[in-house]
Amino acid sequence: MADSKIYSASTTAPVNIAVIKYWGKRDPKLNLPTNSSLSVTLSQADLRTHTTATCSAFFPAQDSLLLNGQLQDVSGARTQACFRELRSLRAKLEEQDPQFPKLSRYPLRIVSENNFPTAAGLASSAAGFAALVRAIADLYQLKESPVELSRIARQGSGSACRSLFGGYVAWEMGQEASGTDSTAVQVAPAEHWPEMQALILVVSAAKKGVSSTAGMQATVATSSLFPARVASVPQRMEDMITAIKEQNFESFGRLTMKDSNSFHATCLDTEPPIFYLNDVSRAAIRVVEDINKKAGKIVAAYTFDAGPNAVIYFEEKSTDAVAGVFKERLGHLEGWTGKGESIRASATEGVDEKALAALHEGVNRVILTRVGPGPISTPESLVDENGEPTAKG
Amino acid sequence: MADSKIYSASTTAPVNIAVIKYWGKRDPKLNLPTNSSLSVTLSQADLRTHTTATCSAFFPAQDSLLLNGQLQDVSGARTQACFRELRSLRAKLEEQDPQFPKLSRYPLRIVSENNFPTAAGLASSAAGFAALVRAIADLYQLKESPVELSRIARQGSGSACRSLFGGYVAWEMGQEASGTDSTAVQVAPAEHWPEMQALILVVSAAKKGVSSTAGMQATVATSSLFPARVASVPQRMEDMITAIKEQNFESFGRLTMKDSNSFHATCLDTEPPIFYLNDVSRAAIRVVEDINKKAGKIVAAYTFDAGPNAVIYFEEKSTDAVAGVFKERLGHLEGWTGKGESIRASATEGVDEKALAALHEGVNRVILTRVGPGPISTPESLVDENGEPTAKG
Repeated sequence: MADSKIYSASTTAPVNIAVIKYWGKRDPKLNLPTNSSLSVTLSQADLRTHTTATCSAFFPAQDSLLLNGQLQDVSGARTQACFRELRSLRAKLEEQDPQFPKLSRYPLRIVSENNFPTAAGLASSAAGFAALVRAIADLYQLKESPVELSRIARQGSGSACRSLFGGYVAWEMGQEASGTDSTAVQVAPAEHWPEMQALILVVSAAKKGVSSTAGMQATVATSSLFPARVASVPQRMEDMITAIKEQNFESFGRLTMKDSNSFHATCLDTEPPIFYLNDVSRAAIRVVEDINKKAGKIVAAYTFDAGPNAVIYFEEKSTDAVAGVFKERLGHLEGWTGKGESIRASATEGVDEKALAALHEGVNRVILTRVGPGPISTPESLVDENGEPTAKG
Repeated sequence: MADSKIYSASTTAPVNIAVIKYWGKRDPKLNLPTNSSLSVTLSQADLRTHTTATCSAFFPAQDSLLLNGQLQDVSGARTQACFRELRSLRAKLEEQDPQFPKLSRYPLRIVSENNFPTAAGLASSAAGFAALVRAIADLYQLKESPVELSRIARQGSGSACRSLFGGYVAWEMGQEASGTDSTAVQVAPAEHWPEMQALILVVSAAKKGVSSTAGMQATVATSSLFPARVASVPQRMEDMITAIKEQNFESFGRLTMKDSNSFHATCLDTEPPIFYLNDVSRAAIRVVEDINKKAGKIVAAYTFDAGPNAVIYFEEKSTDAVAGVFKERLGHLEGWTGKGESIRASATEGVDEKALAALHEGVNRVILTRVGPGPISTPESLVDENGEPTAKG
């Protein structure tokens, strides 16, 4: 008798922002990196992907993925690799116990929604693939650990492997050609150092720059400085892990800024050069430098991914000294609601006036958030009882 | 009987713009570099320092230097080193032949004028120290070769040693701790490859950035990528010399852009990061990239010193394809008179419109020039018969 059920599992997954950057693949097909990386997982209250994975023998034969109401192409090698690996693990369960319904043979229907604007240029693929892998693993009732699932998510999008954990997460590059040892591991949970805050300055970029996938491989192929960056990462990883274990913000901040600059330096050294930082990004750097000068120590640390947006880390106790300065000049923007309301706009004496004016001119919105947990299973489904996507309010 | 004469010699000296950059000293006192460098000497019709060196037993005891009508501080170690070394060579001549007047004991009065605005941010110290050393050497009737004089000019300003020659000039870093083998040599005279043109885009910079003297030492001290840059220069020097000997513009251009980007990458990798390129500089890079794409090969090459101004090299035959595109959008600016008048403004199809608009907005003036000769002795004196500076028209 045919199985008429619709199976479903829902999860949310977080965005992570690296403080030691992933830039360069040693194996583009398997997304195996040239160096280890390390990130902070951000709170899902502010930034998350919500994904429901469903499957049914009665669905149309083609797997599908709906993101923010738009049907996505799932024929790409990366999505296919995730589907294939997860089905293969499910198939093993089904072999072991014939009572298990044969979900591995059913078409998948995935429905996803981000709680932040995709246009903001916040790398959403990490949260997206982490949610996809976690939701399908839950749908399939897989017993694999997050470390094991991270190996699969990595093949969807490299940095997605880090979004399977909360807190402070390392992606160990591994040595194996097969990639089996290239996985994410948790360095410390969010509760170990819960004071970590992040202020994201979303910069209006006229146009998306070079994609990170294309950009990083151009860097690997042409930058003569890139090998020196790769060689410098292991020590920086070690120092960063120590800084996190000791909750040493000065060291954490110094290493974060140094690594971001090192990464963008290798972009500039690429042929032709890749620029992600613009004059607004430079202004954010300048303001952070001046805030640290005023404080007499590192209380704020900037980092930039493959775009002009600044992510500024700071500890809760430095909120007024750091976020307060930005609020003084950017208080009119969206993003200060909720916990941002209680931040006092701080005096900007000692902070470069031209840089503040450039931020006022060039920042579109802010997102105030903090370190948070990994994927969270949720009863809230994005499909109805007929397996159809629900319209979200 | 006291010598009542006023002795005088006048010279002009050129600006040079490096295509393999000098950035980093292994000995800050002697201006000994961490890597060799290579430059193109630019025509003195457009950019030059004119210097008259005078001395007299009747001058006030203090040496003096008047630049563009402003008295300069000559007490600094660099100027003092040049005066001391030149006097020492003169003193040897005086010892050898007692007939020689004892000029080495007379106070020096130096008068200098630049034919370009100092505020334009065009590194004028190279032309300035080259003219100073050449003029005093002529005043003292020294027989030392330009290579030998370059050792002295280097102590005034590193890149000044290259302005003692015309054409294509290498500064060989040398190995000796004393610096005796750290001198400039001519790779090829201007006549070897006279087709080389340069278009300088003078960018309005609100404020001068980090001085190159301070900046380069911060890079040496803190950039983890810098050693890789230094290691990459010897091969690039060799390739560049081959390109010049073969008049191979494609190779010359590729190496020029690569080295400029490598240099600015190490600036970005400095703690705290140093930014000389701004959004207008980036726009110039983009326009050059698009011009080369249109041409199907490298016909234009950008390079940037420690500031946002772009210097764009091209061959005479590519004038319309390169300078013509800039003239189309910047034709209203000062700097297209003379030989620039005959350049046809070229169509800008295929060239990024946003980048052209950024140039239109951010470029203050252009300077159109070409490869030129080294210092030229001139009868035109900047002092009158009483040893007083003449007012220039």
